[in-house]
Amino acid sequence: MGGDFGPRLVVPAVIAALQRRAGLSVLLFGQGDSFAEAIAAIPPSLQSRTTTIECGSSVAGDDKPSAAVRRKLDSSLSQAVAAVAEQRADCVVSAGNTGALMAFGLYHLGALAGVDRPAICTALPGISGSAYMLDLGANVVASAAQLHQFALLGSLLAATVGQRPEPAVKLLNIGSEAGKGMAHINAAAELLRTDTRINYCGFVEGDQLFEDGCDVVVCDGYAGNIALKTSEGLVKMVAELARQLLASKRWLKLPLLLIAGAVRKLFARLDPARYNGAYLLGLNGLVVKSHGSANQRAFECAIDNAVEALDSRLQSRLEAALKQAAPAAQ
Amino acid sequence: MGGDFGPRLVVPAVIAALQRRAGLSVLLFGQGDSFAEAIAAIPPSLQSRTTTIECGSSVAGDDKPSAAVRRKLDSSLSQAVAAVAEQRADCVVSAGNTGALMAFGLYHLGALAGVDRPAICTALPGISGSAYMLDLGANVVASAAQLHQFALLGSLLAATVGQRPEPAVKLLNIGSEAGKGMAHINAAAELLRTDTRINYCGFVEGDQLFEDGCDVVVCDGYAGNIALKTSEGLVKMVAELARQLLASKRWLKLPLLLIAGAVRKLFARLDPARYNGAYLLGLNGLVVKSHGSANQRAFECAIDNAVEALDSRLQSRLEAALKQAAPAAQ
Repeated sequence: MGGDFGPRLVVPAVIAALQRRAGLSVLLFGQGDSFAEAIAAIPPSLQSRTTTIECGSSVAGDDKPSAAVRRKLDSSLSQAVAAVAEQRADCVVSAGNTGALMAFGLYHLGALAGVDRPAICTALPGISGSAYMLDLGANVVASAAQLHQFALLGSLLAATVGQRPEPAVKLLNIGSEAGKGMAHINAAAELLRTDTRINYCGFVEGDQLFEDGCDVVVCDGYAGNIALKTSEGLVKMVAELARQLLASKRWLKLPLLLIAGAVRKLFARLDPARYNGAYLLGLNGLVVKSHGSANQRAFECAIDNAVEALDSRLQSRLEAALKQAAPAAQ
Repeated sequence: MGGDFGPRLVVPAVIAALQRRAGLSVLLFGQGDSFAEAIAAIPPSLQSRTTTIECGSSVAGDDKPSAAVRRKLDSSLSQAVAAVAEQRADCVVSAGNTGALMAFGLYHLGALAGVDRPAICTALPGISGSAYMLDLGANVVASAAQLHQFALLGSLLAATVGQRPEPAVKLLNIGSEAGKGMAHINAAAELLRTDTRINYCGFVEGDQLFEDGCDVVVCDGYAGNIALKTSEGLVKMVAELARQLLASKRWLKLPLLLIAGAVRKLFARLDPARYNGAYLLGLNGLVVKSHGSANQRAFECAIDNAVEALDSRLQSRLEAALKQAAPAAQ
């Protein structure tokens, strides 16, 4: 069990999820005293639905993914992914090292046929809905063909888990007219335009990312990571400036108390915790990545995302769609 | 005169700036009826400080920069830049086509010795200060050597116009530890580390962009444009969600009225208008670019930025610093 807080956060989140979901059962992979302590707190009533596996090592946040795959096949991260490959589990949820999670995913599960490289995908809040964005950092460079694959994966995710019938797919670019911006993105636009499985709706720039009319945003991992993290930074700044404002003007407290519910609602819309749980899309098995700094509620959201993907049979639908040859446009 | 609103916005902004700044005089380059109408409104008391030049053509927002330089040397955009090259003006401020402005800059002024490609640079708000960020879109791809040049240009801008003695320079990357993220950024880090003219402080990720400890953020134009526009989009979203909240709950109006001043102050910190006026750094002459959708107050900010750069002798300092060979680290 990884992430900034390890078992002492993950296990309570799992307990809460088990209490909410009667049909859920879990395998818990961990190592060391903190794991032993955390699992000791599992109530007897839930023990029939939990299996705990003490592992031989753990992957640190700064371990290199390639080295982890060479040397840490006995780690909790590796063993958890292997359980999915061996069909002892339906999916894996982890707050650990993202690169290592992807590397173990490729090692134990492999990529789906038709996918060169899996991508990281999560939902971003918008003014009246949300948009699935990928890749968020697994592939810093992506070819036009890979962006095309990401578009197909994201579109299927939005249609199944997101329940949007014909999801509008856009390419993130630095310029909105055709021909502008990056060459690999323009080449991808040509591929998307002629694939009838995808409802391609053109380029989107960063300043329109949160507007309506966009269900899936496709980009390389470099742009996606910059956009995602910049958004997180800006939300933190707005919250901090609001906090400073309140601290500096004590007479503001009464009027702010009156609107506290409304303000909380506004910030809840922007809260990264609410959107926690990214899919590692394109692996031959379901893998969900929680933010390393996720709090308990956020980790529960990641579990919810995994369950929703299972309920909507995401993996088998991805597999089926990728097996079809891309139908040519008329 | 370009931008979304042309002379009917630019001329009133210029009139306001002339009224505020007794030492300022301007050359106005434009074309057609809207220009004639707008300049007719200049008060007689200011006419001794304004020279109007009717031009043969204008550059449209979607004109290709290369085509503009070939066919529209008589345009207002071209003529305004030429006036700086011919020392009839100290700087040019424009809300027109960014690519064409850069192209005319290179055509009429050329790049400073030691600069391969100029970069677009502006100040972004932070929690307690602001950071100069470059490149924001002039160079979608940048080599390590070019990122090094951007770092030097940005550092000198922060030291002169920004009045920060030893500006902390960081490289925007997707990962904060050395060796992580993009190859060209890691190569640039090596160059910055050994240049004693630059106070290099490591990598910064998008989520720390608005925190303290960063005076200059260096990146390629692809990442810079994505980060800048995503920030703009998110600020728009927060403002829109706040507006919807107010509209939906009328009883919120009274408590909100009580804190209106404080809320205005918070949004003013984030208002893009306040940060309007990007420098085209590295040209052999001072060029300031206003946002195309800038309002009058924002265009005045762009004029202010130009005047501040002149007052702090930015261009001659850039020239002098670039002439020195980079001193090797001990």
